[in-house]
Amino acid sequence: MERNQKVVLGLGQCSFDLLGSLACYPQLDQKVELNSLLLQGGGPVATALVTLARLGVQTKILSRIGDDHFAHLIRSGLEREGVDCLHLSFDRRQTSQLAFIAIDQSGHRNVFWHRGTARALQADQLPLDVIGSAAVLHLDGLHITPSVVAAQAARQNGVVTVLDGGTLRTDTEKLLPLIDHMVVSQTFARQVAGHDLFKALDKLSAWNAEAVTITLGREGSLTRLQDGTCFRQPAFRVEAVDTTGCGDVFHGGYIYGLLQQWPMCDVVRFAAACAALKTRAVGGRTAIPTLQDVERLLQSQHGGRQGHE
Amino acid sequence: MERNQKVVLGLGQCSFDLLGSLACYPQLDQKVELNSLLLQGGGPVATALVTLARLGVQTKILSRIGDDHFAHLIRSGLEREGVDCLHLSFDRRQTSQLAFIAIDQSGHRNVFWHRGTARALQADQLPLDVIGSAAVLHLDGLHITPSVVAAQAARQNGVVTVLDGGTLRTDTEKLLPLIDHMVVSQTFARQVAGHDLFKALDKLSAWNAEAVTITLGREGSLTRLQDGTCFRQPAFRVEAVDTTGCGDVFHGGYIYGLLQQWPMCDVVRFAAACAALKTRAVGGRTAIPTLQDVERLLQSQHGGRQGHE
Repeated sequence: MERNQKVVLGLGQCSFDLLGSLACYPQLDQKVELNSLLLQGGGPVATALVTLARLGVQTKILSRIGDDHFAHLIRSGLEREGVDCLHLSFDRRQTSQLAFIAIDQSGHRNVFWHRGTARALQADQLPLDVIGSAAVLHLDGLHITPSVVAAQAARQNGVVTVLDGGTLRTDTEKLLPLIDHMVVSQTFARQVAGHDLFKALDKLSAWNAEAVTITLGREGSLTRLQDGTCFRQPAFRVEAVDTTGCGDVFHGGYIYGLLQQWPMCDVVRFAAACAALKTRAVGGRTAIPTLQDVERLLQSQHGGRQGHE
Repeated sequence: MERNQKVVLGLGQCSFDLLGSLACYPQLDQKVELNSLLLQGGGPVATALVTLARLGVQTKILSRIGDDHFAHLIRSGLEREGVDCLHLSFDRRQTSQLAFIAIDQSGHRNVFWHRGTARALQADQLPLDVIGSAAVLHLDGLHITPSVVAAQAARQNGVVTVLDGGTLRTDTEKLLPLIDHMVVSQTFARQVAGHDLFKALDKLSAWNAEAVTITLGREGSLTRLQDGTCFRQPAFRVEAVDTTGCGDVFHGGYIYGLLQQWPMCDVVRFAAACAALKTRAVGGRTAIPTLQDVERLLQSQHGGRQGHE
């Protein structure tokens, strides 16, 4: 099988976001007029792929969505960014995942989301040859059986696996031994080991990942390598307008760094810079940076380098 | 000009509603999964016309919407109900009015709405011959200049004018002398005369409307006729799931009653029955009743007749 060193494959849920900006939240039984309304594709893996595409990386999405109006907007949004949608299929007469996100003036937000009725890709529908020839497989782990099958195919073919862990589910453990890089939310870490983040890093590292990172929003992130080294990357200070999709963009930047075979501290620093730049505008994808944007931020903030702990 | 006694014409804003049901409202910076999501056309006049169409009346909408995905859903939703959309035009490259409505288990709701960028119909774009030959012209008064021109054309041709008064605006007074039936919200009434509803009825009647009604939700409605008679219509007791569009459906039922030339107390009682039946399901239009539904409720609740005050 020929390895395409440059392709990142993503297997995960795609959604459609309606992002409304408002002065302040309405009281119960009140109406509030939105100052602006933005319609945009979303979903953790999909937005990570868009990030990689903006950074110049070839990407492919593996997913199934409904065949409603939003499905077509999801697909055209990805195609416009250059994400290969050959393996993004429509589930007939089903609806796609949709989110309404209300963002107030201070950047706080509420997310109302609906799962939709489209069924996830089944394990026997996965293009294993495509998976086996990629450089990286990025997973959200939301649908465990196809995720495990895809990760096994990746591992058998030396494809690097990256997990975006949002919430720990009953059967997530089936996937963890197959993951090279876990980049998980604070919620996920707390489910693993309560408030002790270092304990969570240790427990997750025991599954043999090369690196485990917990993203902490404004508090930056915490990483543990397989040799036991830990380091903290502070968040870059920017005027945040909207944090929607920040974690997803972090994953995109992280995978970009892996492709460059940088030291892990540089990988995480690059990811943090991508996530910070994303917050400049409303929408999960609006302000996703180009390589030039990220390089400019990194050069301007040499003082922001991570400290080892 | 030949009078088409059976056509009700509506001039007003059309919108598109996304209605999400949830267990309870999320805290700030939290996500909440919706139990269900319903997509449906909305807008006061448009929903009143749908009510009339379900009751078997011929209806036509005069309005302009964007030409986005939602515009096409708005139009197809009205066409499916049998509302004539010959005078519903698309404003190129503009967006339509959109609302996200969150409804909790107790039927309380928050409405987040966006005006959209589509421009309203201009006065010189109104089909005055169509207006002049209708039986009733229903207006929301949101765009005053075209509303006044349409109401003048109606009045010159003996067409009955009905106003859905949601909010009193600076120039609403230009329209009031041209209105035969004012059916206004409690908000509108308070803007006219503070908390004294009877004073609001008197002040509004001074513009020479045949009847003025204030709708009061669960408290029913209060009507004043031109001769000074006032009566209260209690709300029909139903298990309310969602009150979205209740007022709009009340207007539809009210106009149906006018077309039958019933005594005003019967007109308002019929309107109240329509509005009550509407609340049976989520969505402004889902449970809009047929004539048979309304008749059944009216027969079953003879005790619910209005008391004169």
